[in-house]
Amino acid sequence: MIIPQLGEAKYDSPVTFSVSEETFSPANVRWPGGTVPEDLLLFEIAGPRKKLFFDAKNTRAAIVTCGGLCPGLNNVIRSVTRELIRGYGVNTVLGIRGGYRGLDPDRGKSPILLTDDLVENIHKEGGTMIGTSRGPVDTKVAVDFLIQNDISMLFTVGGDGTQRGGYDLFEEARKRGHHLAVVGIPKTIDNDVHFVTRTFGFDTAVEEAVRVINSAHTEARSVENGIAVVKLMGRHAGFIAAAATVASQDVNFCLVPEVPFVLDGTGGLFAAMERRLARKSHAVLVVAEGAGQDLLDASDRRDESGNLKLNDIGPFLGDAFKAHFKARGIDMTLRYFDPSYQIRGCPANTQDALVCDFMGRHAVHAAMSGRTGLVISFLHGHFVHIPTGIIAGGSKRLELNGELWHAVLSSTRQRAMFQ
Amino acid sequence: MIIPQLGEAKYDSPVTFSVSEETFSPANVRWPGGTVPEDLLLFEIAGPRKKLFFDAKNTRAAIVTCGGLCPGLNNVIRSVTRELIRGYGVNTVLGIRGGYRGLDPDRGKSPILLTDDLVENIHKEGGTMIGTSRGPVDTKVAVDFLIQNDISMLFTVGGDGTQRGGYDLFEEARKRGHHLAVVGIPKTIDNDVHFVTRTFGFDTAVEEAVRVINSAHTEARSVENGIAVVKLMGRHAGFIAAAATVASQDVNFCLVPEVPFVLDGTGGLFAAMERRLARKSHAVLVVAEGAGQDLLDASDRRDESGNLKLNDIGPFLGDAFKAHFKARGIDMTLRYFDPSYQIRGCPANTQDALVCDFMGRHAVHAAMSGRTGLVISFLHGHFVHIPTGIIAGGSKRLELNGELWHAVLSSTRQRAMFQ
Amino acid sequence: MIIPQLGEAKYDSPVTFSVSEETFSPANVRWPGGTVPEDLLLFEIAGPRKKLFFDAKNTRAAIVTCGGLCPGLNNVIRSVTRELIRGYGVNTVLGIRGGYRGLDPDRGKSPILLTDDLVENIHKEGGTMIGTSRGPVDTKVAVDFLIQNDISMLFTVGGDGTQRGGYDLFEEARKRGHHLAVVGIPKTIDNDVHFVTRTFGFDTAVEEAVRVINSAHTEARSVENGIAVVKLMGRHAGFIAAAATVASQDVNFCLVPEVPFVLDGTGGLFAAMERRLARKSHAVLVVAEGAGQDLLDASDRRDESGNLKLNDIGPFLGDAFKAHFKARGIDMTLRYFDPSYQIRGCPANTQDALVCDFMGRHAVHAAMSGRTGLVISFLHGHFVHIPTGIIAGGSKRLELNGELWHAVLSSTRQRAMFQ
Amino acid sequence: MIIPQLGEAKYDSPVTFSVSEETFSPANVRWPGGTVPEDLLLFEIAGPRKKLFFDAKNTRAAIVTCGGLCPGLNNVIRSVTRELIRGYGVNTVLGIRGGYRGLDPDRGKSPILLTDDLVENIHKEGGTMIGTSRGPVDTKVAVDFLIQNDISMLFTVGGDGTQRGGYDLFEEARKRGHHLAVVGIPKTIDNDVHFVTRTFGFDTAVEEAVRVINSAHTEARSVENGIAVVKLMGRHAGFIAAAATVASQDVNFCLVPEVPFVLDGTGGLFAAMERRLARKSHAVLVVAEGAGQDLLDASDRRDESGNLKLNDIGPFLGDAFKAHFKARGIDMTLRYFDPSYQIRGCPANTQDALVCDFMGRHAVHAAMSGRTGLVISFLHGHFVHIPTGIIAGGSKRLELNGELWHAVLSSTRQRAMFQ
Repeated sequence: MIIPQLGEAKYDSPVTFSVSEETFSPANVRWPGGTVPEDLLLFEIAGPRKKLFFDAKNTRAAIVTCGGLCPGLNNVIRSVTRELIRGYGVNTVLGIRGGYRGLDPDRGKSPILLTDDLVENIHKEGGTMIGTSRGPVDTKVAVDFLIQNDISMLFTVGGDGTQRGGYDLFEEARKRGHHLAVVGIPKTIDNDVHFVTRTFGFDTAVEEAVRVINSAHTEARSVENGIAVVKLMGRHAGFIAAAATVASQDVNFCLVPEVPFVLDGTGGLFAAMERRLARKSHAVLVVAEGAGQDLLDASDRRDESGNLKLNDIGPFLGDAFKAHFKARGIDMTLRYFDPSYQIRGCPANTQDALVCDFMGRHAVHAAMSGRTGLVISFLHGHFVHIPTGIIAGGSKRLELNGELWHAVLSSTRQRAMFQ
Repeated sequence: MIIPQLGEAKYDSPVTFSVSEETFSPANVRWPGGTVPEDLLLFEIAGPRKKLFFDAKNTRAAIVTCGGLCPGLNNVIRSVTRELIRGYGVNTVLGIRGGYRGLDPDRGKSPILLTDDLVENIHKEGGTMIGTSRGPVDTKVAVDFLIQNDISMLFTVGGDGTQRGGYDLFEEARKRGHHLAVVGIPKTIDNDVHFVTRTFGFDTAVEEAVRVINSAHTEARSVENGIAVVKLMGRHAGFIAAAATVASQDVNFCLVPEVPFVLDGTGGLFAAMERRLARKSHAVLVVAEGAGQDLLDASDRRDESGNLKLNDIGPFLGDAFKAHFKARGIDMTLRYFDPSYQIRGCPANTQDALVCDFMGRHAVHAAMSGRTGLVISFLHGHFVHIPTGIIAGGSKRLELNGELWHAVLSSTRQRAMFQ
Repeated sequence: MIIPQLGEAKYDSPVTFSVSEETFSPANVRWPGGTVPEDLLLFEIAGPRKKLFFDAKNTRAAIVTCGGLCPGLNNVIRSVTRELIRGYGVNTVLGIRGGYRGLDPDRGKSPILLTDDLVENIHKEGGTMIGTSRGPVDTKVAVDFLIQNDISMLFTVGGDGTQRGGYDLFEEARKRGHHLAVVGIPKTIDNDVHFVTRTFGFDTAVEEAVRVINSAHTEARSVENGIAVVKLMGRHAGFIAAAATVASQDVNFCLVPEVPFVLDGTGGLFAAMERRLARKSHAVLVVAEGAGQDLLDASDRRDESGNLKLNDIGPFLGDAFKAHFKARGIDMTLRYFDPSYQIRGCPANTQDALVCDFMGRHAVHAAMSGRTGLVISFLHGHFVHIPTGIIAGGSKRLELNGELWHAVLSSTRQRAMFQ
Repeated sequence: MIIPQLGEAKYDSPVTFSVSEETFSPANVRWPGGTVPEDLLLFEIAGPRKKLFFDAKNTRAAIVTCGGLCPGLNNVIRSVTRELIRGYGVNTVLGIRGGYRGLDPDRGKSPILLTDDLVENIHKEGGTMIGTSRGPVDTKVAVDFLIQNDISMLFTVGGDGTQRGGYDLFEEARKRGHHLAVVGIPKTIDNDVHFVTRTFGFDTAVEEAVRVINSAHTEARSVENGIAVVKLMGRHAGFIAAAATVASQDVNFCLVPEVPFVLDGTGGLFAAMERRLARKSHAVLVVAEGAGQDLLDASDRRDESGNLKLNDIGPFLGDAFKAHFKARGIDMTLRYFDPSYQIRGCPANTQDALVCDFMGRHAVHAAMSGRTGLVISFLHGHFVHIPTGIIAGGSKRLELNGELWHAVLSSTRQRAMFQ
């Protein structure tokens, strides 16, 4: 579509990034089939199919939630359960308790029967009513359990590790001749999954983070040279920190894993902070938990899920500021905020409630049709099926030439720091 | 991408709609140029361009907000202002006061100068700090005004009529040899604009609607045969009603303009309500303002913006229920909720704050490059440029075979009513 | 206690009311017994007693909620239940369903057994989990029911009529030789009960009203000559309207039942509104439902509880403004807000949650000790026992020479209207 | 007033505290003058007086905020300013910047002029728009400053130290023959001031604490043996911890400064926690910052305000639990929450907005009448004047035989721990 143009654009732009004049976006992203450009990766549209692989009334399904909390888990459990029961007439939906442990009779509690009534109000509370845990699944033990309990459909809500584990379950079941549909719903509050525009819980996390940033801003402004440091989630990608910065518009420094920074020197954080305090007498700094890891001592520990344990950049920065300004003879007051667990335990907000409902229903549609080894994704405004293999392989990062990071730079004016 | 399939799907699905097996969605919706399938409508990606048409420091810009309130107007004003000043170095940004009236010196107040400081905190309040009004623009008078004030860039925030009016301004200015970039930011709380996935304010509206539905649900449940009727926005499309229904999960009937319904007979609303009360003793009904207009007396009035004035379906339904149940000798209690203006006056929530910030900045990027006669759209997760002509021509509707309406039917179980 | 005084106060104060120099407040309002000044009305302090009249493990208790909804009903039900079970070891606590109807087997549903588990989370939702209704109790039928069900303790949560009805039950039971402790918890969202400083739900109501006033203020300000009319609860007393006005500080006119006003003439509302619009171009008016009833047609209808049905001052004022300004040739935009039922259905906020917990527990302490014919009151910061007879006789009003009304006048500057 | 009694109370109560049968509360706490019982401490009722000491239009006033943040500071500043200007016609109201430092030209910034317009919207944000700091006032320097600036009225918003400092200013001014009315508004988020029923900010603090406890509860419940430790404000008194516990009803252990506890042994916290986990698999523990200080190393540091710096009980308890359960071979997950600064930076909620408005106005009434050396108190539902000397002398504590602590014990069931 041609956009009218007043005339030749001949002035140089001061904006530090630009989009190509040759890039377009289609009006409709549903590809009608037919010839496909060679290098175009296409995903199936999620949704109910005309024909089902499973005979609903003789099918037993189960759902499991793994890893850390994320707003919306109960919404997903509820919508999976209700779509199975109300939409398809499945009689038995089991809630596996305490994450993958619940698939091992020696380690976990036995499952609970999820009924239409039992899930009625669970979406109004945070957390997961079937519990969670970290750590891998013992594939053989779990498949034994699934076969013994005649479960032919497993919904796995969790991160990379959980989805890889789910894929192994499907493979092992196939070897044993047991039809097992494993459908994943990706869960990462950090929103860092490739081929997924937005994971559930992210929007709630940003909303709650903005609330905390408001208080941090107030604390910083109330005293002479007040610095508020707010640590937010974001192990490898700074989406929460960046989005909260833009939504709040009260942040002066936003540090993310994708953008290295130094403390000392003219382009360093200390000098930038001194300039800020000299001009405005207060500052709000937001730091993603994975930012600046190179500044900390190396560490090699992993948690039970196999995730690298990060050193804690939040207190490190707080202490570094205190030491620096003391050495410089400048009085300041530091306030430190770490709201991560408070945020993770919140109920889903409206937007996440909608995403969770769709995610849960689409997972059921996929499983009923006999699909397996996939995760449900919200991509470019549509829900699609993504093979588990390709999402488990990588991790999405902030585009430093994209509009979100540009908006961060514009609202913080922190660019000078990185020059 | 191939999704593993456990085997042939041979059972018929009870779900009343299904997606085609032949529809796919591309992994990347940014089209790299090159050959384009004939029937593929492509839109330019929004964003800053390398070269500018306007010399920023000698350019005067203006912004105007028209029509009813919508959460996020102040956010848009702020981001347009800040991107112009901070991003490009524009010195003069004028706020046209009271909508298009402000472009007519005989009818409106003179503009105010928008500075970086003045807009500092405006996004924390609802409404529009430059005021608004309904009604068309007098093209000739307005272009006189724009030329006299040496304004070469106008940002129009408003609905269909506003954008059509803005386009006329650009055409008239061209005739007079005045370079005028007119860039629109579509504003409709109903989210019913073609080629726009989500308009700003919609998410906040759904969130606030859910709060009211919670109270309505409580009122209905507290008495024997309590019926709560909640009227929500939605003149021609039921997106707010549908999304609030799905997010709340406490709604039993969701009536939208796209789906006709009758009151009497076995498939009618009265019978459906009787069945619901018999089973559960209470009901929550959400109705979009444009639903069921065929049931009301014809009306031909239009408001100042030229929009058709609807008859009020909310009180009509309330009275109809009272009369019906009285005639049937059934005691009931009716509670009516009409939160529309309360919702329109709210500040933007986090999600809308982000959308507004991007919308505002992209509008500035487009205008600085010399583009005109376009609106900024958020489509499939990206911001694009849409020629004003094509959005003004039609209006988006709920897809009755889509996932949102399916989720409404599943959570309300109202399907029987339409059979 | 003597307060230092800088010298003689000799200037006249412009403040229109003043307190007497001879009035004092005691440091401790717990009267230690002993001689009592003749005219001093003393109430028993609420709280657990050393000795009980009832043998807890052989006692059956019941609770009933009557009349309109009010935030906190579920909190009261929960705390009564838990104090009976956990605090005293009572085995049977019955929830009477649907208000006083539930004491009549021919009209209501049978009671439900309230257990520690059943009430676990009910306080997180608004409304009343045992239902409510309006209308009087049939004393004889109800006492039959109480005797048949061996209920010797009844907690009545409701307004004047409910408490009078409860007192009759106690009298009737006494005649029949049945020990029945009837303990009331006064419920009126209007906070208009004599000898009660604050009834539960009032604080939540004010908080929610302020939210609506915020939107109303935004709507009014966004257009030229915008008038927002917000109708709030308050049949005979304007406490909610006044407190919301002071808490919001955005209200320009606050109309309450205690202060008559006229529409026309120099001291009338129309002239005051014209002056306001001339100065500020917008106005927010809050009106209690019982204000200005003399301006409306006489009406003699009563609802099922015997309360006088008021004519609706809200739409009346809206129409009156429209007609007035049309006649005067002044353009204006009127927005009308009626959030009453939305407010009544909210869950209790923190402050009300505390008051409800104390109210419920104190009611149990009183009943266990054998007291009857009383209501629990929160008075001067303490919970006390008030004989039902004296609270039922009158109704509290706004003190026009008190600090609340003074704060209303100061924040609205509406005084001129009443001169 | 006599309450009907069903008969003799002869059973022993299981409730561990009881109120005396001989204690009463008067219906009206406004003492009409006349004979006063010898030992009855009486306070003046706050409010406007008929005669003023100061000639308003020639009087200059100032306000200062000191110490840590507390919700409502801006509300107080606004109401003091508006009552002075609108209520009395005072022309000059100065905001002393950065606490008592602002009274020393060598250390602080010069004051800002507070106008009706400037304070228009400040109450919608947390913090204090004139800044704050810790540390004492230099009496001589400050009185020099007040005299030079012709300030004859100073409103001091702060804690004990601030009020003592304010009293010294009045004494010093008197020595120098300068009429200086010093009126204090007590500020302590902990609500621990004698002769003050509730200080401003306390209600907001409890509300926000409950929000955090909700998330903590969710986190604890989601895993096997999850323990959530929430540290709240409360240096010497556990009012916030206790009120948040009762309002939330989800807390299992509430530790306050007033109630010593031990970690080991059968009545110790560890054993109680083990019993709780064995029964319910999760626990929420709320601890006031001043609780259990005897368990920590002695410390003698004081902050700039002269307050004793406490050792940090929160992390201490977290580490102690981890070590204990590791030694016992019991897997558990600990989550720690420290929301103090987040809470302090919140805007005032509705209830606190009301209290602040009254506090501010009453402070102005007192000063205009020539009173000095006093603080405004909200006591038994009324605002009174308290001589600064007596409130500065002591500190209020939780009554362990009172209804609040009883409600804590009932909702937590933690009593066994203290036996």
